[in-house]
Amino acid sequence: MHCYLGADIGGTNIVCGVVDGEGNLLAADKLPTEAAGGFASVVGRLAEAAKRLLAALPQYTCVAAGVGVPGFVDHERGIVVKAVNLGWDDMPLADELGRQLGVPVRINNDVRMYIYGEATAGAGRGRRFVLGVTLGTGIAAATVNEGRLHYGSGSRAGELGHFGMPGIPYRCVCGLTGCLETVASATGIARQARDAIAAGERTVLADWFPGERAAELTAADVSRAFDAGDETARRILRHTGTMLAQGLAPAISLISPDMLVLGGGASKAGERLFAPMREELTRIVHPMFMSGLKIEVAKHLDDAGIIGSALYAREQTAAGG
Amino acid sequence: MHCYLGADIGGTNIVCGVVDGEGNLLAADKLPTEAAGGFASVVGRLAEAAKRLLAALPQYTCVAAGVGVPGFVDHERGIVVKAVNLGWDDMPLADELGRQLGVPVRINNDVRMYIYGEATAGAGRGRRFVLGVTLGTGIAAATVNEGRLHYGSGSRAGELGHFGMPGIPYRCVCGLTGCLETVASATGIARQARDAIAAGERTVLADWFPGERAAELTAADVSRAFDAGDETARRILRHTGTMLAQGLAPAISLISPDMLVLGGGASKAGERLFAPMREELTRIVHPMFMSGLKIEVAKHLDDAGIIGSALYAREQTAAGG
Repeated sequence: MHCYLGADIGGTNIVCGVVDGEGNLLAADKLPTEAAGGFASVVGRLAEAAKRLLAALPQYTCVAAGVGVPGFVDHERGIVVKAVNLGWDDMPLADELGRQLGVPVRINNDVRMYIYGEATAGAGRGRRFVLGVTLGTGIAAATVNEGRLHYGSGSRAGELGHFGMPGIPYRCVCGLTGCLETVASATGIARQARDAIAAGERTVLADWFPGERAAELTAADVSRAFDAGDETARRILRHTGTMLAQGLAPAISLISPDMLVLGGGASKAGERLFAPMREELTRIVHPMFMSGLKIEVAKHLDDAGIIGSALYAREQTAAGG
Repeated sequence: MHCYLGADIGGTNIVCGVVDGEGNLLAADKLPTEAAGGFASVVGRLAEAAKRLLAALPQYTCVAAGVGVPGFVDHERGIVVKAVNLGWDDMPLADELGRQLGVPVRINNDVRMYIYGEATAGAGRGRRFVLGVTLGTGIAAATVNEGRLHYGSGSRAGELGHFGMPGIPYRCVCGLTGCLETVASATGIARQARDAIAAGERTVLADWFPGERAAELTAADVSRAFDAGDETARRILRHTGTMLAQGLAPAISLISPDMLVLGGGASKAGERLFAPMREELTRIVHPMFMSGLKIEVAKHLDDAGIIGSALYAREQTAAGG
């Protein structure tokens, strides 16, 4: 039987796995990226890990591999143009990994691979127009229309986290002020909590993270405080959900998705965050869009990158692309 | 030589014309819609007008016709599902007109036809990702990605004028509050001017339209007042341009168009409106999008509907669709 290799190279870890033609994950592994070792070393260790996984599945034949990379990827030429976290510029990842694995390799931006995985084999399976948003360290988005990723001019589409929104006062790392990412990412949620502590709000988070320990506070702690009945945590997640809705509303009205998938670390806040988001969406988006729109957290929260990369490679090689 | 018929059925007038394979308009005509006469009468008079136009171009052979209709169109089945201004429900327009003209007919929503015309043979010619917005009585939008119209789930995509935006207090005909359409359409601009007069602002518009005559005031009058140095008119068009930018920013960041085409009556305000829009876009959209984005008023401001309908019919029939 045919199988497909999928991998996601993050700044800290590489995850890779083997997927069958239905998108089922057969085996997976995780290894430190150790980007400081350089491109050849990272690719070499990924290839080794992949071969180990495949060796343990002798009944399967790997026919293609896909890799998601955090950064700007020329998916047509198979080159990582720029990946700041990996220190890569113009790296021929598809060719190099392909040579070592002996199968065709397709590469793409990691968020696109993740959302492609959810659209084809996750929460969006069977849906025609999928809008996917990852709420992680940052915010990114991708759309899959009738099975096809939308790239936009210069392959820049998907920056739902970076435009100035009224009501958001923070300056973003991208240089703009008011980006959704400064509020509705995992980083943004933690930052709001630290701001509340600094402003002297009475919150259990101030007790849990006194003084300089506030720097250790994460989005998960805000959920924990929410569950403990903390009013500050409740206000932060409500505000975050509301702003998320205001960022999503124009996208929903313009492209009319039938599926909104939310992934990434901050999506683990679940209904604490998504209940106020839905409430605001219902207020500001026309019912004709909301009635047909399914909203779900990613099904393969941690594996969507692997599955998406593998299925993308399958689709691209089958299409002769 | 082959030619293509294009028509746009509005609530007041029908415009129709003949277009060559390059998108050049060879002849055009305009007739009152007289929707009250019923579907058969409207289609019959459109067919007659079309035949007259074609009879005067004996060197051309018409091989397909396209028609844009204001409302909800099932373009695949060729049926006008609902066109409120025409009083049509489930009308088999493509079949009926095709029978009378003896050529295949393709129909679609009028805004999609208009933007398709601009994308393929107007301001967006040669561009890969076109976002088009019409600022008329209402606001509507369409996207053409690599020559393909985006429909979205339920064919509902393009409602950039209808979602609740912060900073817009008006209730919209769609039922929501804060829709861009209530401000940045021709109707919205006129309404802001009437509100200013009612609030007792010192404006030349109050002199031009005293008392009940304020009801006659149009967006064009606001441009006229702007040119006369009127401060209220300047403020209204600045506010309108700013809100337009805030509605467009998420769309630009999400889909990354390389062309933004603005059409419809209110776009005739030109730089009076688009200068403040560009200024706000530059403030809230990342430079990487703005640097590659061309922004222009529709090239075929009044004929884009005809040209788009004709070229859409050509494309759809050539593709065997």
